[in-house]
Amino acid sequence: MSNPITIAVDAMSGDRGAEVVVHAALEAVRENEALSLVLVGIRSELEALLHGGHPKIRIVEAADVVRMNERPSHALRHKRNSSMAIALGLVRDGEAQGCVSAGNTGALMAFGRSLIRMYPGIERPAIAKLIPSLRGRCLVLDLGANVDSSAENLYQYALMGSLMATAVSELAEPRVALLNVGEEEIKGNEQVRLASHMLAQSDTLNYIGYVEGSDLFRNVADVVVCDGFVGNIALKTGEGVAGLLIELLEQAFTRSVYGRMVGLLARPVMGRLLQLMDPSRHNGASLLGLQGVVIKSHGNANERAMLAAIRQAVCEVTHEVPRRINERLDDLLF
Amino acid sequence: MSNPITIAVDAMSGDRGAEVVVHAALEAVRENEALSLVLVGIRSELEALLHGGHPKIRIVEAADVVRMNERPSHALRHKRNSSMAIALGLVRDGEAQGCVSAGNTGALMAFGRSLIRMYPGIERPAIAKLIPSLRGRCLVLDLGANVDSSAENLYQYALMGSLMATAVSELAEPRVALLNVGEEEIKGNEQVRLASHMLAQSDTLNYIGYVEGSDLFRNVADVVVCDGFVGNIALKTGEGVAGLLIELLEQAFTRSVYGRMVGLLARPVMGRLLQLMDPSRHNGASLLGLQGVVIKSHGNANERAMLAAIRQAVCEVTHEVPRRINERLDDLLF
Repeated sequence: MSNPITIAVDAMSGDRGAEVVVHAALEAVRENEALSLVLVGIRSELEALLHGGHPKIRIVEAADVVRMNERPSHALRHKRNSSMAIALGLVRDGEAQGCVSAGNTGALMAFGRSLIRMYPGIERPAIAKLIPSLRGRCLVLDLGANVDSSAENLYQYALMGSLMATAVSELAEPRVALLNVGEEEIKGNEQVRLASHMLAQSDTLNYIGYVEGSDLFRNVADVVVCDGFVGNIALKTGEGVAGLLIELLEQAFTRSVYGRMVGLLARPVMGRLLQLMDPSRHNGASLLGLQGVVIKSHGNANERAMLAAIRQAVCEVTHEVPRRINERLDDLLF
Repeated sequence: MSNPITIAVDAMSGDRGAEVVVHAALEAVRENEALSLVLVGIRSELEALLHGGHPKIRIVEAADVVRMNERPSHALRHKRNSSMAIALGLVRDGEAQGCVSAGNTGALMAFGRSLIRMYPGIERPAIAKLIPSLRGRCLVLDLGANVDSSAENLYQYALMGSLMATAVSELAEPRVALLNVGEEEIKGNEQVRLASHMLAQSDTLNYIGYVEGSDLFRNVADVVVCDGFVGNIALKTGEGVAGLLIELLEQAFTRSVYGRMVGLLARPVMGRLLQLMDPSRHNGASLLGLQGVVIKSHGNANERAMLAAIRQAVCEVTHEVPRRINERLDDLLF
């Protein structure tokens, strides 16, 4: 049996409440005997959902919850006893090696920065996610933590992204690229051009230059760096297209008796497509920059999605992402 | 028979050369008897491809071609006799009501601005495209003409986009939105927030506020406005996902004998999906801001894609987009 792992899960902050979290937690500890979970939330509710308790699942009481539309600054001042803040506190105190929350991203960022130390030399944490494609995966950051990222910010995202890709994807020299536009008349804005210049100077980083939005799925880069405004809109546009396609497939295979028949026949050969397009299988983004594993789940995550986010936390803890980034970041930054 | 329409087509600037353009041209005049085309390029080559000539297709000689990787400033200085510049000149001189080019976007923008007057009060032209989805279509701009768009620029894109949607989609009060990020901690950058404030003041515009990338396909807005850097990356990311899915479908339906069999059976019910995902059916973006119809085609457009771009030009000419924007822009701007 591998080393024991403990993950704290904010059980109250998601749109769907504690039930999906508890069900995902039970599945997570069932499939991984090295894993123990700490569910943070209203004890009575969680105990009821657990039908008393579970040997691998501990409950930590949290009286309060951060609301989805709550201002991060307000949460920071008034929600110290929220399930989110307490879950992050367990990571800070070493009672858990990582935590997962489906709550308000802004509040998670704010609490994360106030409770967990950042890597020295990193100005802002970034939201990073592994985007699946036909060939390989691509770590994209920032996906919405920061707007108006400076060239220095982009450079720092690139360093953290490269080190994370090395840690989790076992890549010796991850190909790092900057997301840019293709049209000839614009080589991107000044921040991107300046960041490219900085990255080109680095002899430790495998910087390959600019890539376009379509390149995210063509395995031309292992790490793609962009400002959070751009990354968030690109990610959501891509998810929108995928959702549209799934909807069209469902229509095609349900509208008529013939369609339903073909749909049944097609299932076995379409497994890979449906898997790749199912957002719940790829849920879980990393708050990269904090000296601890903090995973942000989609707010409306279902049970499978919540399970995917917990797995992501386990993966980063297993690969010791924070330690391995911390060890090498200094040499790269200065 | 409807009013005669003449469109000039830059026959030389695309990646695939004149052949696809000539074939698309022949199909275009075949399907629309009101349409006449002017093909601009090397006469001998075009005549050979036309097997002499065609009553509805005139050839105008152009000795030069703008290269794809050529700097717009260089093209502007040295390529006055290019097929691109001459095609635009035909629009300026009223010999054609619109033109289509698959060439270098930057050069097309530069020549467009230098040869064709812009709408008074508009600082920069924007690239606008109708994005198809399951319900309705959405006009998105800017898709890459400008980076670092100011709030005023975004406001002007919104006005032009709203007037274009009114003209081509016959919408009385198009729903206009700004593309923004969803996360609570960031309400977007300053330009977007300021543009939103300006748009909210307008009583002539049906401004509905912010939308996210995924909303582009959910018929929540008729016109979505963004900076060209963001729009270009969002569009290409969406195209990347669509391409990935088409590839996965092809794999599923070709890998095995069983898969091929299912593929044949599935064709009839998947027609709509494949149509919606086929980029060549949606080719043709508008250079919005010029007092004339100028359509930018994908550089590597095939025959069907080129035909779609010509149809887009015909559509905008038929709906008198430039005149109708010109008439109403003044009231909205000042």
